[in-house]
Amino acid sequence: MTVVELVERKRDGGRLTPAEWRALMSGYAAGDVPDYQVAALAMAVYFRGMDDEETEALMTAMLESGRRLELSHLTMPRIDKHSTGGVGDKVSIILAPLVAACGIAVPMMSGRGLGHTGGTLDKLESIPGFRTRLTLEEAAAQVGRIGCALIGQTREIAPADRRFYALRDATATVEAIPLIAASIMSKKLAEGLTGLVLDVKTGAGAFMPRLEDAFKLARTMIALGEKHGCPTVALLTDMDAPLGEACGNALEVEESVHVLRGEGPADLREVTLALATEMLLLGGAPGVGQARETAEHALASGAALRKFREIVQAQGGHPGVIDNPVAHLPRAPLRERFEAPRGGFVQRIEPRIVGRAITTLGGGRTRVEDEVDPAVGFVLKLRPGAPVRPGDALATIHARDEATLALAREALARAFVIGDEAPAPRPLVSHRVTARGVEELPGPLQIGDP
Amino acid sequence: MTVVELVERKRDGGRLTPAEWRALMSGYAAGDVPDYQVAALAMAVYFRGMDDEETEALMTAMLESGRRLELSHLTMPRIDKHSTGGVGDKVSIILAPLVAACGIAVPMMSGRGLGHTGGTLDKLESIPGFRTRLTLEEAAAQVGRIGCALIGQTREIAPADRRFYALRDATATVEAIPLIAASIMSKKLAEGLTGLVLDVKTGAGAFMPRLEDAFKLARTMIALGEKHGCPTVALLTDMDAPLGEACGNALEVEESVHVLRGEGPADLREVTLALATEMLLLGGAPGVGQARETAEHALASGAALRKFREIVQAQGGHPGVIDNPVAHLPRAPLRERFEAPRGGFVQRIEPRIVGRAITTLGGGRTRVEDEVDPAVGFVLKLRPGAPVRPGDALATIHARDEATLALAREALARAFVIGDEAPAPRPLVSHRVTARGVEELPGPLQIGDP
Repeated sequence: MTVVELVERKRDGGRLTPAEWRALMSGYAAGDVPDYQVAALAMAVYFRGMDDEETEALMTAMLESGRRLELSHLTMPRIDKHSTGGVGDKVSIILAPLVAACGIAVPMMSGRGLGHTGGTLDKLESIPGFRTRLTLEEAAAQVGRIGCALIGQTREIAPADRRFYALRDATATVEAIPLIAASIMSKKLAEGLTGLVLDVKTGAGAFMPRLEDAFKLARTMIALGEKHGCPTVALLTDMDAPLGEACGNALEVEESVHVLRGEGPADLREVTLALATEMLLLGGAPGVGQARETAEHALASGAALRKFREIVQAQGGHPGVIDNPVAHLPRAPLRERFEAPRGGFVQRIEPRIVGRAITTLGGGRTRVEDEVDPAVGFVLKLRPGAPVRPGDALATIHARDEATLALAREALARAFVIGDEAPAPRPLVSHRVTARGVEELPGPLQIGDP
Repeated sequence: MTVVELVERKRDGGRLTPAEWRALMSGYAAGDVPDYQVAALAMAVYFRGMDDEETEALMTAMLESGRRLELSHLTMPRIDKHSTGGVGDKVSIILAPLVAACGIAVPMMSGRGLGHTGGTLDKLESIPGFRTRLTLEEAAAQVGRIGCALIGQTREIAPADRRFYALRDATATVEAIPLIAASIMSKKLAEGLTGLVLDVKTGAGAFMPRLEDAFKLARTMIALGEKHGCPTVALLTDMDAPLGEACGNALEVEESVHVLRGEGPADLREVTLALATEMLLLGGAPGVGQARETAEHALASGAALRKFREIVQAQGGHPGVIDNPVAHLPRAPLRERFEAPRGGFVQRIEPRIVGRAITTLGGGRTRVEDEVDPAVGFVLKLRPGAPVRPGDALATIHARDEATLALAREALARAFVIGDEAPAPRPLVSHRVTARGVEELPGPLQIGDP
């Protein structure tokens, strides 16, 4: 069987056997199968899809192309969270220490920002001295010692996925649900987890804005996790507007510290607590109420903040960031108040426009190799649902220079939609998806609530 | 606009502007656009198609990536024929000298065999000494001198198409009608023609077996020709069984000489005369009757055979092939009679099985760089519609060794379908397509006619 025959079969709506997926991906990782054939195959998958068995075979092939984080000697549960990405999504920075403070091991491997979405690694690296490039051995040792490590995907983890993802990014084949699911899970299952919580974003700023696609992605990932002995649960959370107020690397770390102190925006705190509750349930908490209480207590007691300090210190970061973020995080030289041009209600804040404007300011990437400016970004002052008078501050822009400041100002003018009526509120955490089915959540808090 | 954005737009069903196609193909020919992006784009085109303007832009970009055959100084009409390919299709070898003998310049650029179909160049090269690798200058001079040259696509003709075609062959993206049409026409329009006849095959052995696809391909190519000032006509001809009796390179040259002598199988002669008639009409013949008569006369008078001798001699081939083909063409050492296992009627001869069996014998290619054995192949003795008794000779196998002979025997056993009833006859030349529309032809001869 030649590779071109496999491409042809997929193109014509057929399926590849697990053995064929394995041979293909190992040939690809070894450099024997050229990029152009895999690119054509990826585009055929975009149109034809893959069944569950194929998705699992691809995921397994990518997982087995590399090493794993060896944590099986640990006695405590090992739970991670993965988010499909959004704007202002700094949940990981709060969630990892919070859950670790509750006695769960959190070996968290995060990514970098690309396109309109930010990346946890970039945010963490705005902390002076913070090292995200730990070896697998260092990460395993740190998880054993303090219960948590916040690291990047090393070259040893799923190298076939790394190569395939870069190719998909260059060939407009990222947005295929089975490929996304296999890619994410090939990395997450390399973490040696006993449970995984997925934060699948929906709404305009989500990678897959349509609710049905979010469900499909969640279900596909859950099936992969369960099949590999890793119980997996997904929450569908809102990304129709940026999460929280801060958008930009250092600004988001500052906001994360506020939430760890028990302060900060209610929506960010709520999404974090909802995900923490699921992680604690997977870690053995006897019920939702108790799990939620444990998580809230970790914030209220300062245990989560203390755990964050331990992590920052263990990874070489300046602990002053925890005590006085403004003094120790990089600050942009220019700060400008962005005012409402008219009165009414904030109807929308287009997350993609905000996300791309961070890149325009220098705080994001258009290519993997771009450097990011940690200091720049926005702090939103009013959010969807808020009443507004002409001249009210809608946001503060943090910029490096006048030229990018002007561009950011223009972008915000497009991002903020102000109308005469308050928008319909959207549930913040809309659904809970497990291997058993979908639960619609009443949503204790909605965007637009005070 | 980045290439990945163009791929994304095509993937989502959008269109690329002519300027975008031009920039893309010139970047590709220059090596600035990588194969993998073009592979993904080709697969997206496979699923989404291209409109007429896009197809024309792609064709023009590929045409303009190279040089053209300079024939505009010639006063006579310059007409070529292109076939979409089949099994036993040696029409070009007869047609080019036949039409050139009628005073039309025929600058015929042909291809090599690939997959189950044979190639005119491979067949011609079974003539000892015959050179198909003429330079554009040599070809132009020969066309001026004797009215015909039978050559291969030089490196100077449509290099972007050459690279793109090789990529499509390796990525299962050959079978997209606009890509096929643009590829063929980018080469044909480089020949400096005043008219072009297309032989679009239909039936099981055709590249596009479905009639509606054949129509669409014909219409797309005609639109491209007419748009570029080259009147183009297509005949849809049957490829549900091999054309003629001989299948294999030297065997097909031998059969071509028979037809040029006024002998040979009726179906092969008829398809050739039908295409010759169209070429003469494009060359200015006053009507169908007269054009047909002129073509028949060129065969009957020996003028076509004399022209073939001129061409063979001009291109360095041994003229003895014309006087005594069997003595001068390569002959396979093993020849075996293949007998009917049962009586009844020959219902089908599967052309794809026969075509692939030629490759098994060594007479075809699975990769472009393969060498072909000119001597091997089949001569069919009974054809669809013929009554057959057990033990009758169905074919003769010409093989290099016992191992391939055994495989060829097995293949023929699958290729020949014998049943109790005669099959429904199929028209040999079913439709004539022009820029004005489609004409259904009564078909003077059908497969199965004596």
